[in-house]
Amino acid sequence: MKKQKTVMRHVRLAGMGKALAGGELCFAGEKRYRLRAGETFSDLMYQASCRALAAAGMEIEDMDCIVCATATPVQAIPCNAALLHERLAKGLDIPAFDVNSTCTSFVTALDVLSCMTEMGRYRRVLIVSGDMASAALNPAQRESYELFSDGAAACVLTAAAEEDCGILYSRQKTWSEGAHDTEIRGGGSALPVFSMEKGNRPDYYFDMKGSRILKLCARKLPDFLNLCLREAGVRREDIDLVVPHQASRALDVMMPRLGFPKGTYVNRVSCYGNLISASIPYALCETAEEGRLQRGHLVLLIGTAAGLTCNFMLLRY
Amino acid sequence: MKKQKTVMRHVRLAGMGKALAGGELCFAGEKRYRLRAGETFSDLMYQASCRALAAAGMEIEDMDCIVCATATPVQAIPCNAALLHERLAKGLDIPAFDVNSTCTSFVTALDVLSCMTEMGRYRRVLIVSGDMASAALNPAQRESYELFSDGAAACVLTAAAEEDCGILYSRQKTWSEGAHDTEIRGGGSALPVFSMEKGNRPDYYFDMKGSRILKLCARKLPDFLNLCLREAGVRREDIDLVVPHQASRALDVMMPRLGFPKGTYVNRVSCYGNLISASIPYALCETAEEGRLQRGHLVLLIGTAAGLTCNFMLLRY
Repeated sequence: MKKQKTVMRHVRLAGMGKALAGGELCFAGEKRYRLRAGETFSDLMYQASCRALAAAGMEIEDMDCIVCATATPVQAIPCNAALLHERLAKGLDIPAFDVNSTCTSFVTALDVLSCMTEMGRYRRVLIVSGDMASAALNPAQRESYELFSDGAAACVLTAAAEEDCGILYSRQKTWSEGAHDTEIRGGGSALPVFSMEKGNRPDYYFDMKGSRILKLCARKLPDFLNLCLREAGVRREDIDLVVPHQASRALDVMMPRLGFPKGTYVNRVSCYGNLISASIPYALCETAEEGRLQRGHLVLLIGTAAGLTCNFMLLRY
Repeated sequence: MKKQKTVMRHVRLAGMGKALAGGELCFAGEKRYRLRAGETFSDLMYQASCRALAAAGMEIEDMDCIVCATATPVQAIPCNAALLHERLAKGLDIPAFDVNSTCTSFVTALDVLSCMTEMGRYRRVLIVSGDMASAALNPAQRESYELFSDGAAACVLTAAAEEDCGILYSRQKTWSEGAHDTEIRGGGSALPVFSMEKGNRPDYYFDMKGSRILKLCARKLPDFLNLCLREAGVRREDIDLVVPHQASRALDVMMPRLGFPKGTYVNRVSCYGNLISASIPYALCETAEEGRLQRGHLVLLIGTAAGLTCNFMLLRY
């Protein structure tokens, strides 16, 4: 295995914002949130963005770049960031593009944009995540139908002057033996929208094989995490807060296997389930608002996603 | 307008590859290529990738990252790079993610990944572009139906030792007043696949307002290009080759307005039309194979895309 060069990036999560859909459902005592009539997913991305900018004390005019780190599109064309630009920045010429590694898109985008920021290519970036899960949930698959909420979260990432603030380490891996454990087979070139008929309708729904994903994660993640901690020179006890992707209730099975007992990591699955690409930034924003996440804390982000892709990122908040 | 810091990135396009669909159509004497029976778009991405690796004299095992810089998905989930990983790198753990700014995704990806390469985050990256245009072309809109081909192109981007090889300058802008001039309104959260009915079928097709795009480009691009050349300290006569997005026949109208007379830029629209995200890397690969593009040449890439997004990039090949 190639050794990963540790690359410090002096960046700051200057402000975060979040938005949850307004419609409430309840499954086995747990609430889930889905878009209500008259509400659009673009509204959520817009709200989360405005809140992140306000929290950072900035205006959209201050941004050098708008990035949507999302798993699914608002329209098939153009990219989500161009459509968000239309709501947020019409008349301005801020560049806009999308980054997609499904549920871990936000962590990938932090990885990518922090490098661009460190290089001076951009100085202030708005990163927005979120998906409308309810657009493709299959009522016949209870495991996934009852798991997801529609939500968005945003973050203003800026170049930081402080030496002790930023991304200390990041590493991503994809194991494509899991490529079909979490998928929507239809809607792209493999099975275009116009090929939908009565018999293949389920192929256009989200399809999750929960126990297969869990097994693959259990096989791959512990070694990968140990490698990352070793390369970063960080021990588990140095970490102030662990924010994993809010994948499912199985979080309480997986996290102890990674050496993080209950209470050391954020688990909000019972509150709003899985928010797809918004899961991690939503939880980050929430813990910051609650005061659990504080400036100077060492945070470990653990992104897991369809692919199967996993990101580990060490962040001095 | 904020001044852009010029950020040299020492990278090399170490190898390129391309693949065109096997089915031929002819419109007004010009050939277009569309997937034939038994051929998939994934086949094209795979072929282009293998050719790029061979041209670079490398194996997939040598890659640190796989990036799909595409406008449209193969499946709705997971991202294209994870699915390409399954064809190309199954059993390996190379990270995979997508970058999307529609037709100019390849240039955005070069911009992003060259920063990561310069930072040492990755050293060798496979970037693959391409789309299956024919999945969403509307036979009732001749202007677009007769313009596009299905194709893919790939590039191995590596950290370069040479001082005089790399990306000298890049800048991107998005003007969202053009967000709906090139679009597919359906297929995402705004108009999900399950909302398709007889009456709104056209919303799921690609829809292009050619003359509006051309007007917006004519209004925005000349000033933007002049700014870029000024910031980069490069004159038009210093440039050896201009590779614009192969948007349409209007290329011969637009390019002279940017100060590039016929013969100074690559125009292959009559050969295979618009290849969406593959247009620029396909033309780059072709001109390199023909010997028109040579090592040491100063190349200007001009990406234009739905959004409306434009990228200018100066590259010492």
